[in-house]
Amino acid sequence: MKKSFTEIKRVCKSILINYHFSEVKATRCADIFASNSRDGVYSHGLNRFPVFVDYIKQGLIHAESEPELVERNGLLEIWDGQQGAGMYNAAIAMDRAIELAKESGIGCVLLRNNNHWMRGGTYALMAAEAGCIGICFTNAIASMAPWGGSQPRLGNNPLVISFPYHNKHVLLDMAVSQFSYGKMQEYELENKMLPQFGGYDEEGKPTKDPSVIRKNKSALPIGFWKGSGLALVLDILLTGIGGGLSTAAITKSGKEIGLSQCFICLHPKKFHEELVEEIFQFTKKDTEGNQDEAVYYPGERMLATRTKNEREGIPVDESIWKKVMEL
Amino acid sequence: MKKSFTEIKRVCKSILINYHFSEVKATRCADIFASNSRDGVYSHGLNRFPVFVDYIKQGLIHAESEPELVERNGLLEIWDGQQGAGMYNAAIAMDRAIELAKESGIGCVLLRNNNHWMRGGTYALMAAEAGCIGICFTNAIASMAPWGGSQPRLGNNPLVISFPYHNKHVLLDMAVSQFSYGKMQEYELENKMLPQFGGYDEEGKPTKDPSVIRKNKSALPIGFWKGSGLALVLDILLTGIGGGLSTAAITKSGKEIGLSQCFICLHPKKFHEELVEEIFQFTKKDTEGNQDEAVYYPGERMLATRTKNEREGIPVDESIWKKVMEL
Repeated sequence: MKKSFTEIKRVCKSILINYHFSEVKATRCADIFASNSRDGVYSHGLNRFPVFVDYIKQGLIHAESEPELVERNGLLEIWDGQQGAGMYNAAIAMDRAIELAKESGIGCVLLRNNNHWMRGGTYALMAAEAGCIGICFTNAIASMAPWGGSQPRLGNNPLVISFPYHNKHVLLDMAVSQFSYGKMQEYELENKMLPQFGGYDEEGKPTKDPSVIRKNKSALPIGFWKGSGLALVLDILLTGIGGGLSTAAITKSGKEIGLSQCFICLHPKKFHEELVEEIFQFTKKDTEGNQDEAVYYPGERMLATRTKNEREGIPVDESIWKKVMEL
Repeated sequence: MKKSFTEIKRVCKSILINYHFSEVKATRCADIFASNSRDGVYSHGLNRFPVFVDYIKQGLIHAESEPELVERNGLLEIWDGQQGAGMYNAAIAMDRAIELAKESGIGCVLLRNNNHWMRGGTYALMAAEAGCIGICFTNAIASMAPWGGSQPRLGNNPLVISFPYHNKHVLLDMAVSQFSYGKMQEYELENKMLPQFGGYDEEGKPTKDPSVIRKNKSALPIGFWKGSGLALVLDILLTGIGGGLSTAAITKSGKEIGLSQCFICLHPKKFHEELVEEIFQFTKKDTEGNQDEAVYYPGERMLATRTKNEREGIPVDESIWKKVMEL
């Protein structure tokens, strides 16, 4: 089943308005859900919309709250998301970081007490579209064991970095696990094994079975101790600066709400695009690999998916569409 | 053989003064070499000093040049290292980023046309010691194949993040390869295999043999495509903002000189140390692991090594010491 961007956006928007979202907020949230599906990030696009609405119904996401500035310290601002719509607050935070960077070269907004931002790439791409560099990260409920441990005590806190490059922006949107939980769900739905070890089984042995990993919340951090350290440090930065809930506190609460996110934006006077072009040429020249693949830059295949989906329509799971129609 | 911090620093300083380093510059560089050895980063401490001096002799490092401000854009500054002493320029760049952050909450210095900074952790720790958060990265000569390729076309560009925490600062100092080349050299010197796959052999098969990987310059990026993407994006940021040499240009030149580094510093009004303490407690509680290890936070074991080396003296390789004495 395929749907157009416009239809997905229209449907999501009208549902959100029924749940007391303002016109502006419903439009922005619907646009983000539709864009994520259009870009091939189905797990955090329409597929996630029923869960989002369920959280609103449960009162875990406050439809009417607006983010508030808590503290200003020059170009570093702390905002409180007031447990509102995660992607709306995150977009406002990145708007503000872009504004700061355009004034002063760099800006940083730390957003606490927010909800799930869906896809980190959304906000870094906003920066790129505004002609800036974006660096964003979030914390999350625990779903990875720290190196040396066996229980889930680390969030799969992603790191996202963008660079504006004509209309082909560079976008690294990287969960610190070898496979994001969204990606593992896709493999599970298709009854496929992962192409690499993605986590641990009950006995602590590496496994490629996505259902085992998802059940155990035992995703493998990229680079073992390195991804483990990175996930921990990102949480420390977010919590230590913002004063919101850490992965520890979120996990103890049992609900993935009240997250913290950081939005750093840079706006140099000049971008040396000719040098970036040289980097691409040098890196891509090496395609005699043994993985039957060409070399892509981060974001390149996402853009190809976007183009395809814009042309042919966005693939939509029929059962998800049915659920959405019933919301 | 063991030497004191004071002796290593004194010896390095007097040699650098013979090579036309100013008193101030020789002191700072010697302090960094000695500190790196004291902290257990031997590969970028005294062990590297003979190479550093050799680069000076060859005219690849200019003893007398000072870093210069090229462009100021609010809190984002571009500096040129004038091919001077890499660790000296990097320290000055971080000094400046700290100064900007203390004034305005955040600051960023992009340093181009610099030389090897030795250990990234040095500069992030400077931020932590000044009560700030440091985020630093550098580019380098190619030593990793991009995902989908087989030839070395990516630098092992490390990402370094610090967080000030009493006297036990958090420090993630992470090469984007599974093992840094310095670490692989240590295994090779001890005739040991790596504990995990660390790169590829001539046939493109994963191997744990450090000498094969070092010969082929075929280090494995953390998380396969993820570390590959991260290394590429860091180079794009550095080169795209700073206009210096990219990994492509450095590799084509054949010498690892003229590198770019980025120093981001954040200075929030308040650090929520009690929440960071909660994170540590939650994460470390999980020590029933299957890896016969406890859970450490990044930087924790480095501090233990520092304490031990301060008490017992710094281990020094006799052949290295002999080389240094002949400089």
